[in-house]
Amino acid sequence: MFESLRLDHTLSKADFKAEEPDLRNRLVEAQLDLLEKPDFPVIVLLSGMDPIGRSESTKQLLNWLDSRHIRLFASMRKSDEESARPRMWRFWRALPPKGEIGIFLNSWYETPIRDHFLGETGADRFREQIDEIRRFEEMLCHEGALFLKFMLFVPREKAEAEIKAFGKKDSPPWKVSKEEREIGQAYVERYDHARAVTERMISETSTGYAPWYPLPSADPHYRDLTIGRTLAAAIRARLEEPTRSVPAGGAGLETPPAPNLLDALNLKLTLDKKTYSKRLEAEQNRLTKLTLGRKFEKRGLVAVFEGNDAAGKGGSIRRIVQALDPRMLEVVSIAAPSDEEKAQPYLWRFWRHVPARGGITIFDRSWYGRVLVERVEGFATQSDWMRAYEEIRTFEAELTEYGIIVVKFWLAIDQQEQLRRFKEREDVEYKRHKITEEDWRNREKWDAYRDAVHEMVDRTSARQAPWTLVEANDKRFARVKVISTLNERLKALL
Amino acid sequence: MFESLRLDHTLSKADFKAEEPDLRNRLVEAQLDLLEKPDFPVIVLLSGMDPIGRSESTKQLLNWLDSRHIRLFASMRKSDEESARPRMWRFWRALPPKGEIGIFLNSWYETPIRDHFLGETGADRFREQIDEIRRFEEMLCHEGALFLKFMLFVPREKAEAEIKAFGKKDSPPWKVSKEEREIGQAYVERYDHARAVTERMISETSTGYAPWYPLPSADPHYRDLTIGRTLAAAIRARLEEPTRSVPAGGAGLETPPAPNLLDALNLKLTLDKKTYSKRLEAEQNRLTKLTLGRKFEKRGLVAVFEGNDAAGKGGSIRRIVQALDPRMLEVVSIAAPSDEEKAQPYLWRFWRHVPARGGITIFDRSWYGRVLVERVEGFATQSDWMRAYEEIRTFEAELTEYGIIVVKFWLAIDQQEQLRRFKEREDVEYKRHKITEEDWRNREKWDAYRDAVHEMVDRTSARQAPWTLVEANDKRFARVKVISTLNERLKALL
Repeated sequence: MFESLRLDHTLSKADFKAEEPDLRNRLVEAQLDLLEKPDFPVIVLLSGMDPIGRSESTKQLLNWLDSRHIRLFASMRKSDEESARPRMWRFWRALPPKGEIGIFLNSWYETPIRDHFLGETGADRFREQIDEIRRFEEMLCHEGALFLKFMLFVPREKAEAEIKAFGKKDSPPWKVSKEEREIGQAYVERYDHARAVTERMISETSTGYAPWYPLPSADPHYRDLTIGRTLAAAIRARLEEPTRSVPAGGAGLETPPAPNLLDALNLKLTLDKKTYSKRLEAEQNRLTKLTLGRKFEKRGLVAVFEGNDAAGKGGSIRRIVQALDPRMLEVVSIAAPSDEEKAQPYLWRFWRHVPARGGITIFDRSWYGRVLVERVEGFATQSDWMRAYEEIRTFEAELTEYGIIVVKFWLAIDQQEQLRRFKEREDVEYKRHKITEEDWRNREKWDAYRDAVHEMVDRTSARQAPWTLVEANDKRFARVKVISTLNERLKALL
Repeated sequence: MFESLRLDHTLSKADFKAEEPDLRNRLVEAQLDLLEKPDFPVIVLLSGMDPIGRSESTKQLLNWLDSRHIRLFASMRKSDEESARPRMWRFWRALPPKGEIGIFLNSWYETPIRDHFLGETGADRFREQIDEIRRFEEMLCHEGALFLKFMLFVPREKAEAEIKAFGKKDSPPWKVSKEEREIGQAYVERYDHARAVTERMISETSTGYAPWYPLPSADPHYRDLTIGRTLAAAIRARLEEPTRSVPAGGAGLETPPAPNLLDALNLKLTLDKKTYSKRLEAEQNRLTKLTLGRKFEKRGLVAVFEGNDAAGKGGSIRRIVQALDPRMLEVVSIAAPSDEEKAQPYLWRFWRHVPARGGITIFDRSWYGRVLVERVEGFATQSDWMRAYEEIRTFEAELTEYGIIVVKFWLAIDQQEQLRRFKEREDVEYKRHKITEEDWRNREKWDAYRDAVHEMVDRTSARQAPWTLVEANDKRFARVKVISTLNERLKALL
């Protein structure tokens, strides 16, 4: 592939200078129009075996554009925070919001290419990582991201000369770490192998929606003008033609009246006060021990709580929190997304709360909102929530593969019980007319939610991240079932 | 996953009979509307560990629908023709055209699931096949296909009873081969393992655009009514809402004036008549020997010819044909697609000509039309030809992985030479005004084609399927270069 790279790509300084002012105008205009109507983020990747060229191009882009609206991700080495979380966490964190441009001087490609080049990962792991990248980028494209992936290629001789000049007195003032120097050296020494690995990665990840642009980078004028022109043209094209049509998916499954998973629950299950107190205390003690044990330090826990309104999620969560060390814990209550969160892919606001190794995050409502409220209320299109099942499975698999234990609870009550609890609440703080309106609204959509819950459990209950349906008409029963299920899961997996 | 399967899904015969007439009407109406405006094909998969249920449901669908517009693919065992070609060939062949419904009683899922279940393929091969399936279905969805993938699940006890009844006097008249019986037996004996493998496959291939529907199949009334309802609703939904919007891709690469791969050719290369005759004869003899050798019997050859108009593709092909045994050869000249071909994904008309093991197909123009004429003339949208690079790489990789040798030639002439040849032709058969119009048209688009060729070569020249650019201003030089390149490739790979 990319035989054009052997051709001589140069541009004179005079030609560069002649075009630069106009290019800069086009870039800044595109950036301003994007900011004014922030409908999509722009993701620019500068990859390849040319660390100096990548740095230079980045500086050029920062010089041309308004750098206040650029997100630069450059760190090669993982921070402590990043090392303590699944591989993709650091990239999720660095994603530009809609309206902004993210420049990745190091991206999700560098480590897989390097590790495979060095023989640290075999063909299988390399393929797995390719698959992970494809799904990640496909999801981002569905969420609207505009991709510009530049792979910089530099001839062997030039790369060699640059490596040699590293750290010498007359070399440019690059901060080059020992690792970077070593890997640069290795690339030069086994140039053909490095190119073969790179081309394999490009060939597998150059898709119609996120193609790679191979770029000869020996001549900085040619290189930077190409990057600048392509970036300006791509933003302009997307601003002018934001969408395209693709064939719609089919409808959902249409069954005759069929049993619902929620029907199988016996909501009459109760626990008397005395048994409750005893069992709750025992389970809480057990939870404390399990999470303070040494085995837990290398793992982590994500607990998801979903359920009908007023099903008692808060109460259950409080009983768990009582047993945990607050320093290792975060409780995240998911309501309407913030402006910052709305400007990102829908999973972003959950990725940001993924616990570090040894940590615990409890989600009071979660990413399942996409296939529950957003589906039922029509906030998400059918194709958006249909693809969410797969995206959620992938997300949770990334957590569990990293060692994080994932538990998910649906707290189920029936309509009468919900009404009773609404009224009880109403007596305390709300006005009568308000609860009645809500009540009617809920009653109307009760069946739609019921179907959505059924399909959600069916499609996202994975071996490593199963759902537990909790009979919650009796609060005491529900709380004990939740905490004992959690303990059983920890015991089985730690 | 699919915990709902343990629930009891039944429907009384009376309820079934009550709904059947209306359902049948809806199905036939949907089918007729689809036929009237044949914009998309419908692909129905009936998979799962329930061979009898799958057969029964197929018969039910054939009974409800107008079976003249159904394509049924049921054969479990590969025919000789199918065995002699890459794995996906038989499924390409069986795809329904736009406007029709294809029912796959056996599909691209059965063999990967069975082989992995039996331990004949390891985790890596299973993952590769999952990847192959994902790309295949993604491409089909882009091409418009409407997917309905039903996975039939039957309880262990029922499966066991059915297996036991196979071949007994009072069992239903099923044709069950020894292989089917054995695999059925194995599934029952290791039911949990079979389910785990199946669920893994479902989980990895249930996408937003082609989701799996898990279906409890023990009760035939429930099962068939669900399939029928879902099929009718999905066709109706697509007819009413044929497309949805997704974010558009970016623009192409924008470079400063850059060298083109075609520029690097020395079109002044010639061969004198005497040398030509001698070398051509020698290369033709060599080609005969190579293709008649025993090593070639297990391989196959696909030779692709593209080039400027009047570049001499036909002449080069004739020189190759002269050296080959006509019984092992097919020469396919690609012009405008037939009606039948237009009703299929664009790669379909090339898959149908993939040679059997030991065979040779020469393509005079090819699948590259999508990224050449269709791109330049605007017959394909940008997103369609952008994704074609990846689809073509995948297609050719499927050929080469099967052992077929793929060679690709671009025959390049310059504008003056093309004009000279046009005029020469004109003197023989065409009228003057006609060739002038064409000439002007070509001249206008010459640069666009040049860029398209450059990008095509850059993006699709794979290690296993490289492009050869042929300097073709001198016909003799071109013909000898083509045939000697072909021989070198055969020699290297056989």
